[in-house]
Amino acid sequence: MIQAETIAAALEKLRTEKPLVHNITNVVVTNFTANGLLAIGASPVMAYAKEEVADMAKIAGALVLNIGTLNEENVEAMLIAGKSANKHNVPVIFDPVGAGATTYRTVTSQKIVKELDITVLRGNAAEVANVVGENWAIKGVDSGDGEGDLIALAVKAAKQLNTIAVITGKQDIVSDGETTYICKNGHSLLTKVTGAGCLLTSVIGAFCAVEKDYVLASAAALAVYGSAAQLAAEGIEGPGSFQIKFLNKLCQISAEDIQKLAALEEVNHVNL
Amino acid sequence: MIQAETIAAALEKLRTEKPLVHNITNVVVTNFTANGLLAIGASPVMAYAKEEVADMAKIAGALVLNIGTLNEENVEAMLIAGKSANKHNVPVIFDPVGAGATTYRTVTSQKIVKELDITVLRGNAAEVANVVGENWAIKGVDSGDGEGDLIALAVKAAKQLNTIAVITGKQDIVSDGETTYICKNGHSLLTKVTGAGCLLTSVIGAFCAVEKDYVLASAAALAVYGSAAQLAAEGIEGPGSFQIKFLNKLCQISAEDIQKLAALEEVNHVNL
Amino acid sequence: MIQAETIAAALEKLRTEKPLVHNITNVVVTNFTANGLLAIGASPVMAYAKEEVADMAKIAGALVLNIGTLNEENVEAMLIAGKSANKHNVPVIFDPVGAGATTYRTVTSQKIVKELDITVLRGNAAEVANVVGENWAIKGVDSGDGEGDLIALAVKAAKQLNTIAVITGKQDIVSDGETTYICKNGHSLLTKVTGAGCLLTSVIGAFCAVEKDYVLASAAALAVYGSAAQLAAEGIEGPGSFQIKFLNKLCQISAEDIQKLAALEEVNHVNL
Repeated sequence: MIQAETIAAALEKLRTEKPLVHNITNVVVTNFTANGLLAIGASPVMAYAKEEVADMAKIAGALVLNIGTLNEENVEAMLIAGKSANKHNVPVIFDPVGAGATTYRTVTSQKIVKELDITVLRGNAAEVANVVGENWAIKGVDSGDGEGDLIALAVKAAKQLNTIAVITGKQDIVSDGETTYICKNGHSLLTKVTGAGCLLTSVIGAFCAVEKDYVLASAAALAVYGSAAQLAAEGIEGPGSFQIKFLNKLCQISAEDIQKLAALEEVNHVNL
Repeated sequence: MIQAETIAAALEKLRTEKPLVHNITNVVVTNFTANGLLAIGASPVMAYAKEEVADMAKIAGALVLNIGTLNEENVEAMLIAGKSANKHNVPVIFDPVGAGATTYRTVTSQKIVKELDITVLRGNAAEVANVVGENWAIKGVDSGDGEGDLIALAVKAAKQLNTIAVITGKQDIVSDGETTYICKNGHSLLTKVTGAGCLLTSVIGAFCAVEKDYVLASAAALAVYGSAAQLAAEGIEGPGSFQIKFLNKLCQISAEDIQKLAALEEVNHVNL
Repeated sequence: MIQAETIAAALEKLRTEKPLVHNITNVVVTNFTANGLLAIGASPVMAYAKEEVADMAKIAGALVLNIGTLNEENVEAMLIAGKSANKHNVPVIFDPVGAGATTYRTVTSQKIVKELDITVLRGNAAEVANVVGENWAIKGVDSGDGEGDLIALAVKAAKQLNTIAVITGKQDIVSDGETTYICKNGHSLLTKVTGAGCLLTSVIGAFCAVEKDYVLASAAALAVYGSAAQLAAEGIEGPGSFQIKFLNKLCQISAEDIQKLAALEEVNHVNL
């Protein structure tokens, strides 16, 4: 089990070290991602040019790759940055936004996981399924109505890609294929804020920059992020206000809040 | 006449069906556009790469093209996406941001309306005038001080381009050349939020995705959007707060609000 | 000395003239920059295509260049726009985001200041130092822990580049090499909002568009911007709320507020 104290300690370390998180992300969420990373205590940088991404990734605490509005130039930069990160032991977090929605996204996602060592893969069920070659309905960039055993999917993805798979939805799952956690934190208003998943991916990056047990880092990120959303949703007027209050709460969430709210459970693999 | 019940019914349909709206838009407004579409109940996707836009446009309920920060790559993608949408009967909404401000924007706008079947053209008076080849002063991307008969301009643009023309400003006009409405909803604070016009264009797309009478869809979008702005402006502190409360109100606006606020009038063409 | 009345008069002129400010800026801050410029009373436009930037810069009141997410295409556009602005006596404000963080950013910054006449250079200490060829530690796009005499650095940069240097940090400095001011306005919450520095650069552009004494324009921009931040920070819940209230305050700040808060001091060069 992961104790609330362990999660709070990881957050405290993040806030003290203020790790540099290098994002190559989509044009929709750049501002929200940067503000969310600042709020939780990290130091965000966006750098996309092939001339500089190897240099930036090398000095970062984590590299986050997100194909939300991919094009050939960005994908090329992602591969250069990813190889630099891999070479310098910088964790690489990958968000295959919309994998399955178009052939281009599916093929590109599969190319990225093939050419790079991905530390953590974070997506909704449809995206993760499509990355590992399973058919799963997706609607644009939102998870479709596909049903399936999400824990089995996370374990399969983790083993097949030798990574940590994080599948988010009503419940979130993190698995390295051997150890698996379910996180029940979060709030439905997150689905009304564009880039809520993308920012989560970057926040996982920030935790991985300070906590080298990446399963723990990912699980802690999920618990903190989801708990902050729950705090933000209290008495909120609508999705606009929620987005703003959520940034406040990412900045303010305390060890006491985490103690009270964190809802992480380990899955017993014997029963799978 | 369009009854308030009809507008409310279109909004209800939008919220139930959550149509996928594919946007190829400018880098200034992507986040606000996505959050605004989520707030009103649609499912936004941004996809810009020529490798995937035909696939994405084909499965969308509407395609929105916006040249706010155009470049040759984006324009090429817009044409590919637009042809795919035309082929699959997906409505195409076009926002010629800044047409008239530079030759490049004017020429590109005219190329887009020539090569694609545009379902709805949405701009300020200067933009629409420049698309149809009239001289009309424009200041950057804001409508200039040009004066003129806006109804005549809308009717002319609709007939010339065989489209529905929506001209927004202090009053909004929608016309297919035969039937014309004036919408008096809206609030001056919208001019203090960047992308308020761009988001409106995308919201028209969302209504067109669920209501095949596109004049009705456009008029309903104007009335709902402007009414939400009026609700958001009540007692507001400034443009920052307005932007956030407007997202709340797009999410919350009810049939009762529409009944109370919608201000659509049909223009008698006999008198033109 | 610059009197509070002079600052307030410059702001009033800005709000009356609503100057067009042409920004070629990074993808992280475009929305916040546009909304901030609208809030203070300017008319923002973003235009990046090499086909149109010369036309747009020519008609603008100021041109703002920002390399936060530079690539070769944008840099080419910046040079074209900058030459057009120089030719038509449009002030050019340059923000060398992240100069020093990667070789690419350092080299590009130095190329821009060499090829263009820069009216105002605005950066943190590390960025300005790296532009003028000094070594200064930087962490991503945040100023590093380097220590040094900031006034001497500003004077050196101003003289070396024949420009006005604005160095921002805990205190802000503006110098043309002969006349130097320190501004003590501002608030630490600005460091929790991405693009707070970038927006400041654009606001300096807006002031330069209406006030041809560019040292005064820059100093006035610093005082107004920092004072608005102080007003916004009063009783604020967190960085999300601050960002929104700051936009409100940029819109609302009055001559009385400036009279009460502005903290500009002239530096006696005899003592340097």
